[in-house]
Amino acid sequence: MCTNLFEVEIAAFADDAAATGPTASRTLIEDLVTANHILFDQGIVDAFGHVSVRHDQDPDRFLLARNMAPATVSPDDIVEFMLDGTPVNAAGRAVYLERFIHGEIYKARPDVQAIVHSHSPTVLPFSVSQRTRLRPVCHMSGFLGGGTPIFEIREAAGDGTDLLIRDQGLGAALAQKLGESSFVLMRGHGSTVVGPSLKHAVYRAVYAEVNARLQVEAVRLGEVTYLSDKEAETAQRNIETQIDRPWEMWKKRVQQWQASAA
Amino acid sequence: MCTNLFEVEIAAFADDAAATGPTASRTLIEDLVTANHILFDQGIVDAFGHVSVRHDQDPDRFLLARNMAPATVSPDDIVEFMLDGTPVNAAGRAVYLERFIHGEIYKARPDVQAIVHSHSPTVLPFSVSQRTRLRPVCHMSGFLGGGTPIFEIREAAGDGTDLLIRDQGLGAALAQKLGESSFVLMRGHGSTVVGPSLKHAVYRAVYAEVNARLQVEAVRLGEVTYLSDKEAETAQRNIETQIDRPWEMWKKRVQQWQASAA
Amino acid sequence: MCTNLFEVEIAAFADDAAATGPTASRTLIEDLVTANHILFDQGIVDAFGHVSVRHDQDPDRFLLARNMAPATVSPDDIVEFMLDGTPVNAAGRAVYLERFIHGEIYKARPDVQAIVHSHSPTVLPFSVSQRTRLRPVCHMSGFLGGGTPIFEIREAAGDGTDLLIRDQGLGAALAQKLGESSFVLMRGHGSTVVGPSLKHAVYRAVYAEVNARLQVEAVRLGEVTYLSDKEAETAQRNIETQIDRPWEMWKKRVQQWQASAA
Amino acid sequence: MCTNLFEVEIAAFADDAAATGPTASRTLIEDLVTANHILFDQGIVDAFGHVSVRHDQDPDRFLLARNMAPATVSPDDIVEFMLDGTPVNAAGRAVYLERFIHGEIYKARPDVQAIVHSHSPTVLPFSVSQRTRLRPVCHMSGFLGGGTPIFEIREAAGDGTDLLIRDQGLGAALAQKLGESSFVLMRGHGSTVVGPSLKHAVYRAVYAEVNARLQVEAVRLGEVTYLSDKEAETAQRNIETQIDRPWEMWKKRVQQWQASAA
Repeated sequence: MCTNLFEVEIAAFADDAAATGPTASRTLIEDLVTANHILFDQGIVDAFGHVSVRHDQDPDRFLLARNMAPATVSPDDIVEFMLDGTPVNAAGRAVYLERFIHGEIYKARPDVQAIVHSHSPTVLPFSVSQRTRLRPVCHMSGFLGGGTPIFEIREAAGDGTDLLIRDQGLGAALAQKLGESSFVLMRGHGSTVVGPSLKHAVYRAVYAEVNARLQVEAVRLGEVTYLSDKEAETAQRNIETQIDRPWEMWKKRVQQWQASAA
Repeated sequence: MCTNLFEVEIAAFADDAAATGPTASRTLIEDLVTANHILFDQGIVDAFGHVSVRHDQDPDRFLLARNMAPATVSPDDIVEFMLDGTPVNAAGRAVYLERFIHGEIYKARPDVQAIVHSHSPTVLPFSVSQRTRLRPVCHMSGFLGGGTPIFEIREAAGDGTDLLIRDQGLGAALAQKLGESSFVLMRGHGSTVVGPSLKHAVYRAVYAEVNARLQVEAVRLGEVTYLSDKEAETAQRNIETQIDRPWEMWKKRVQQWQASAA
Repeated sequence: MCTNLFEVEIAAFADDAAATGPTASRTLIEDLVTANHILFDQGIVDAFGHVSVRHDQDPDRFLLARNMAPATVSPDDIVEFMLDGTPVNAAGRAVYLERFIHGEIYKARPDVQAIVHSHSPTVLPFSVSQRTRLRPVCHMSGFLGGGTPIFEIREAAGDGTDLLIRDQGLGAALAQKLGESSFVLMRGHGSTVVGPSLKHAVYRAVYAEVNARLQVEAVRLGEVTYLSDKEAETAQRNIETQIDRPWEMWKKRVQQWQASAA
Repeated sequence: MCTNLFEVEIAAFADDAAATGPTASRTLIEDLVTANHILFDQGIVDAFGHVSVRHDQDPDRFLLARNMAPATVSPDDIVEFMLDGTPVNAAGRAVYLERFIHGEIYKARPDVQAIVHSHSPTVLPFSVSQRTRLRPVCHMSGFLGGGTPIFEIREAAGDGTDLLIRDQGLGAALAQKLGESSFVLMRGHGSTVVGPSLKHAVYRAVYAEVNARLQVEAVRLGEVTYLSDKEAETAQRNIETQIDRPWEMWKKRVQQWQASAA
């Protein structure tokens, strides 16, 4: 096996610059930048993890930052990709190895408009637990009620991988495990959450972590009453009409943080 | 079921602007704004949760922010309500769906002057635990000694709700479960705490969360000695004469925070 | 029982202003102010808790802030007390009800020069655990090796108190339980830690909390190897020669915090 | 036993100033300063703990701050040492008692270029657990897959030490326990982590703590699926090509923090 796969990629994309196509809206790109910053500020991503959005002028493309820490992404760092993971306008910039998570899910799920992949700290332990499943403990996390399947990479690629989704085949296997859910755990790695808009995906990524923190405390106190399937469904439908409220608050926080750093 | 109840409400209140009545004191409104900010700064509310106070010139009304994140409430955002939940001066602004929590408790409990509803992170797990009750572990939380009933919404509205207190009937059922206590847990949702003043309600909301954090650690260490009923009663009576001290400190913190953001 | 003991005290001290005696050194007063701020910044005290130091010109007196949140103490807020708890120069300012913790320990332990009383959040659960004793898990907390007795106020004052040390008798009972240790837990209330200097008492208050956090995690992982008595003794003797290092770092932090707030 | 070993050392080094040798590169010294600040900012060290790097012009020397809190280290505080722990240019400044951790590992492991010793808060509990070993739960911590041996100082120096590595013999015993691993736990004390560069050592110190936090949560949820040996090996090889990403982000954070304090 090669020892430096990531850096090899930098050169490989050097000749993509000539690609063309419709231009994504400026608002979409700005929202994607904001989503990167919110996810860092809320502790969902650290130097690793990424968020994408489907191209608003071409459903066969998606937008994702170049290979970098989400906290420092700016509009110029957003790269356009084909669904097979080929960057359209990377212009020699390194891209995330795991862009196949995004491309393959957009392929399999036309309803999905945005995706967050993270190692958020209280969700990850549920990916390695053989006994306790991540389940909704409150009305804010009804989107977990559809089930939280666990993707075991050993089933797709055997023992001995680095657990990363480093090609289309692994991306497709992950998309298959996700199925019609909003959320999939990845054993020893983290999770991926999808939504019908950027705000939905960000909301769900944050509240999956919130739910995980609530659940680890609840489990410690004895038997837990989880939301029923019907409660989860009703709660998701109604609560998710309110996601502008946290989005605007989180956006204001990162704007203040940027102003104070300037 | 309708899919967008919250936004429907925005229009519904558009013609409330002509309502009149005595004006609440400026100090009361400013304290309510401060309470919103303190509860955010202390981690009791995030983008969700709300705090109200009974109108100081008309006991049949109460004050509550319009539908927004508590952290950014200003005096202009405070709306006046009738006890049945009808906004008096919303002037087309969206209001919290769960205002019935407040109205029905003010109806049932003439002694209550202020109410905090939150999903505070260590209290909520006690709402779903089938084994461990939230109980006072120290002298600061004697107000929990009167018991911490759990409101199970399935008893009032069957399985399949979104767990929200979205009408007067559910508000009345919650008020009945609260009874003469200071505190009621809401299964899969959070809690509601009441007090004879805004400072009391804020103090109790913060220290319920503090007590929950102490209790989850204590439970982990083995059998726990809780406050006896008599200790809880004496502690509450004496300690709550000191609540100006934390209020002033918390207020100073949010003022510094606002000054640094300006 | 009276309902407002604390406020009654404000009036009671109004005629103490004429008291005289040697003046404590300015450095000692400034260090006591710094100790108040450090203990808040390190999360050992919130709006409650207090730190005292023995008067450096008169061993029968001690210095303690007036009744206020430690975070906002300034030199003008420091009051001088007799060992029986009588304020010398309160000049009508309210004082801490629990000053008897300090006076009675200074009486019983001539070696003690400084005392911290707090409800620090991970130490308090050990005060109510019937199974797990607070014990040193690392070399930084050798001072816990002498034992961590638990003061049960029911033994001294029966069931039904507010758990506070509100008179000389309770202070003396607490001092007796402390014995020759550095640290005493107070059931359902918190702890008191003593030292041969302000820096020692502050260091021990912070590292008792650090040790408690380490121990709750360790206990969760299975059987724990604690420091032996001999290790604790050697570690305490050697490590406590290094306490200027954290003191200076903590002091610098609170100075920066004050500069940024100014 | 002497009671003040640390201060005695201050005088002992007063005549080292005349020592000479090749000068370490300015970049290396600046990176070492940055490493000190990152480790503080990330919560790996507090007032205690230290990081060293092997001299880039002379493999028989290493660089380490003088005896001080890592948060406040500047280039002028970096001291050069011989591998036996003798300071070359301390010029009377106090040095860390535990410099033997560094010297003896550099002696035993020519591949090691940098070392972090810390008491990081969630790793330490694994050093005293008799049941649960620190093991990799995710792809970011493959470096733990080689095993996490525990150094029990009682085996080398009997019961009754202060647990510190205060001479060459103890340093050599620790280096022997480390063996070919990247990481060694020290019972009741903390851990030491090594790497082929400063960035590696800092990355591993931070992610050992991250892994410990993930593992304590996972253990609480039931049986855990850890990385297999092969997964750990592959993950380490591939992920550690990406460590510039967190290093640059962490560096930017401490630079902003210093700018705001200036």
